Amino acid sequence: MTAIATTQDPFIKSLLMFIRAHDQSGAWESMPDEEVLAPYILSKEQRREIPLFGDPDPDILWRVEQYFNAIAMAIETQSGHAVSPIMKIHHEGWGRVILTAGKLVAVNTYMRELHRFGFDSAEEMSAKAGKIIAEGVATIARFPEVAAA
Amino acid sequence: MTAIATTQDPFIKSLLMFIRAHDQSGAWESMPDEEVLAPYILSKEQRREIPLFGDPDPDILWRVEQYFNAIAMAIETQSGHAVSPIMKIHHEGWGRVILTAGKLVAVNTYMRELHRFGFDSAEEMSAKAGKIIAEGVATIARFPEVAAA
Repeated sequence: MTAIATTQDPFIKSLLMFIRAHDQSGAWESMPDEEVLAPYILSKEQRREIPLFGDPDPDILWRVEQYFNAIAMAIETQSGHAVSPIMKIHHEGWGRVILTAGKLVAVNTYMRELHRFGFDSAEEMSAKAGKIIAEGVATIARFPEVAAA
Repeated sequence: MTAIATTQDPFIKSLLMFIRAHDQSGAWESMPDEEVLAPYILSKEQRREIPLFGDPDPDILWRVEQYFNAIAMAIETQSGHAVSPIMKIHHEGWGRVILTAGKLVAVNTYMRELHRFGFDSAEEMSAKAGKIIAEGVATIARFPEVAAA
């Protein structure tokens, strides 16, 4: 991950904005982007070491929410339709995320083993988010009258 | 509320089924329907007396979930499309419920002041649920290709 890539990627920029919007101490404001994003970046080995029993750290579930908020914002920007997320994430580490535009379900995702939520790099995170964003934008393009309903 | 009305109403029957599906002691099996439904029935005066500060009893939030499960089931039966609920209810007593059919948002409801969730009678409860069910069925009839997507 390079500072240049982080600054230029619109998804990463949105994610940083959502994370920093929850800053309660002012510490994240001056913190470099890489440090703010660091909890999202875990190597495959690091992920594998995290046990799957018990409840995942609530901070992880919060990070998942910010990740999908940034995805919702990207779909909204690209499609021109207001996108609203609803996430029901169980404290044991699984859940469902729906992003709606009007009466349309633009994205519907189930998640599990959130204990290990993380990405190899910021680039990988952005690429995976990009696939969900493209799916959401394509669904809206397919049913524009429902997204406007 | 009469026993006859309770037995004949398909919504009330579904609701009783969902409630009894969570019976962990076997006590609700032999309990009369009226008693099982009793926590849903509150007079306007009783509701007004419930304070709105603090968290509502978690049992209330559970009752709201069963209420919308029964609504989802009715929409599914009437429309012939599988309906899936996602409910995000905050412990402070407000929340959002979405019932989806395929890629369609059949019902989208916001709720607040759930501390006072209740109905004057089983008839009123069924009538209010009936409006939500009719709205969901009508939305599916309007966009059948999205409900099947």
